Amino acid sequence: MPALSHRITTLNGDGSDGWDVFYRARAMIADGVPVTELTIGEHDIGTDPSILKAMYESALGGHTGYAIVPGISALRDEVAARVEAQSGVPTRRENVLITPGGQAGLFAAHMAVCAPGDVALFVDPYYATYPGVLRSVGAVPRAVETRSSQGFLPQRDVLKAAVEAATSLLINTPNNPTGAVYPRATLHDIAEVVTAQDMWLISDEVYDTQVWDGAHISPRALPGMAERTLVIGSMSKSHAMTGSRIGWIVGPEDAITCLVDLATNTTYGVPGYIQDAALFGLRTGLPLEAQVAEPFRRRRAIAERILASQTVLRMIPAQGAMYVMLDVRATGMNGEEFAFALLDAHHIAVMPGESFGRSAAGHVRVAMTQEDSRFKAALRTLCEFASALAKAG
Amino acid sequence: MPALSHRITTLNGDGSDGWDVFYRARAMIADGVPVTELTIGEHDIGTDPSILKAMYESALGGHTGYAIVPGISALRDEVAARVEAQSGVPTRRENVLITPGGQAGLFAAHMAVCAPGDVALFVDPYYATYPGVLRSVGAVPRAVETRSSQGFLPQRDVLKAAVEAATSLLINTPNNPTGAVYPRATLHDIAEVVTAQDMWLISDEVYDTQVWDGAHISPRALPGMAERTLVIGSMSKSHAMTGSRIGWIVGPEDAITCLVDLATNTTYGVPGYIQDAALFGLRTGLPLEAQVAEPFRRRRAIAERILASQTVLRMIPAQGAMYVMLDVRATGMNGEEFAFALLDAHHIAVMPGESFGRSAAGHVRVAMTQEDSRFKAALRTLCEFASALAKAG
Repeated sequence: MPALSHRITTLNGDGSDGWDVFYRARAMIADGVPVTELTIGEHDIGTDPSILKAMYESALGGHTGYAIVPGISALRDEVAARVEAQSGVPTRRENVLITPGGQAGLFAAHMAVCAPGDVALFVDPYYATYPGVLRSVGAVPRAVETRSSQGFLPQRDVLKAAVEAATSLLINTPNNPTGAVYPRATLHDIAEVVTAQDMWLISDEVYDTQVWDGAHISPRALPGMAERTLVIGSMSKSHAMTGSRIGWIVGPEDAITCLVDLATNTTYGVPGYIQDAALFGLRTGLPLEAQVAEPFRRRRAIAERILASQTVLRMIPAQGAMYVMLDVRATGMNGEEFAFALLDAHHIAVMPGESFGRSAAGHVRVAMTQEDSRFKAALRTLCEFASALAKAG
Repeated sequence: MPALSHRITTLNGDGSDGWDVFYRARAMIADGVPVTELTIGEHDIGTDPSILKAMYESALGGHTGYAIVPGISALRDEVAARVEAQSGVPTRRENVLITPGGQAGLFAAHMAVCAPGDVALFVDPYYATYPGVLRSVGAVPRAVETRSSQGFLPQRDVLKAAVEAATSLLINTPNNPTGAVYPRATLHDIAEVVTAQDMWLISDEVYDTQVWDGAHISPRALPGMAERTLVIGSMSKSHAMTGSRIGWIVGPEDAITCLVDLATNTTYGVPGYIQDAALFGLRTGLPLEAQVAEPFRRRRAIAERILASQTVLRMIPAQGAMYVMLDVRATGMNGEEFAFALLDAHHIAVMPGESFGRSAAGHVRVAMTQEDSRFKAALRTLCEFASALAKAG
């Protein structure tokens, strides 16, 4: 076999990616062990049947041929209107590219702004694929570290020290894995630093419908930021359409024009019937989104009540998204040790914070993706397990 | 707006891409002009309702969450069995990555084998996106020119001269736009040259079910080639699923492992219900594929009969795929002039050969994508138009 390109053989960086707990849990499930899965951000419901019906009707109606690469006009218009309503920033069809999922949007956005060898920043803790996305476009990933004690919000001085010679900064609010929703002050710091360096901001906002405390602010709405921000959106979390792989990039028209050219060569568009299904979902409006988000709001309240009844684990305030982050260091274990021990002792699978970067070491991320009673029982067991460890330690 | 990356701003190369006829035809249609569209490779039928029903049942059955990134095991197995049956090369699940379409497969394959700055070869005439794919991965495209008089088959001496310091060669058989099906002798020349240079071969075989004369031979089946060939396949042409964006890459296991890592960062898989639909389509077997291919076989015979009745236009023997290439030089026009004149005079849209590279200049490509009687009438008009031009010239 001839050599493969350096970029693809080095995608995973060096060392473990911290997903061993996840794979052990999957193996146990395959072996018939009744594991309570609180690892990944997958809803415990499927896509609403009304959306699937709209998809089927579109396909039967003949929308099975090539859809135009930028996305069908009606969906681009709907996304533009949605983003404008949410952010207040004037947004038109020409500012929107429909992508086969948020992940494809993240990749394409970085393909567009980073040249090979460019330094690309991301905030630690981070969603699992971020460093791989940056490496796959040939960029050099550089982490902006944050602290649990500061709610995992990026700090102005750390940002200023990190941006030297960087091309782009990738942020995610509401945040996976931390549950942080960036307040206006944090976004102002980001905008100032990014503008001073004439950098791009890639803003991953796929959890924008899942906010439990405060409000989601898109950094594209800050003064001067619309011209340097690419927003990544998706139907995955808001409409429980994770498997349908449909999302979008919103940004300056000139950048979107180039991104359409890129999409012609990399994906050649998104299935027309899935676009019609997404359009139906968006037009159905808030009730459907609220219905999809509601279980997480409810379970977050459950988690707060359970965590308040003990003192070993510290819960990072979860303002948004589908997760709670727990500081487990008082047990004497790091996140990975705790997650493995919990899995082995009680068949409950959570993600070690270490899977999401150095800043989340000593934490575990608990996905709120099981029905309420099972979630409650698992979280109680987790707390008792932590208490026992702390007493024994 | 900060600068965009060089690779994305230079995707289209320099100058016109030759698609002006296509866009003028689309504009005329939008204005209500009854244009007979013989431009792009879109079937005149939709996806079979039985496939759409399988898709809907899968979605309703709950397959709407994240599908695993390499593709569902049953589909990878089915593709492996299909490729093994067709080529005789032992092929397992581990040799297969399911991709969101053949275009995504072409892009990913080149991402895997080409480093930025590498020389990547492609055969001219070529499918529209090929040079853009190579540029988008940062490679330097280099054309291997062919001749109409040699059936547009790449010649050994031309290949040998072209491969110096090249990393990969991209071929397409059955060929779009020329209709050529590469014979064993041509594939042997390619294999020899590629092996001597220790290069990768990317073999686009998306038209493998549309062969009217001779047989499709996959170059992966030639001695020593399985270890250096990445085959691109797709459900688009074989099952009229162009809009569903589902295809695959077949290659050495180590390369596929790296490509799965890449897909994790660039696409995060393909909708599970579309994979189930593809699985249904493949398992339905030959009758469905023959039904999809049959109209093109029939219309190719129609084209041969009509073209035989005149001497101005020369038809390149169309052994496969959905197109016929006609040499229009005896009209005194080049392909683009002829296509524009035909569109304006008779509202018939065909693609200028120039859209597909220098080697196809002076030709037009006629897609056999209208029902028989309309196709017959359009082709007769085209021939009469050419005769009149030749007489007037």
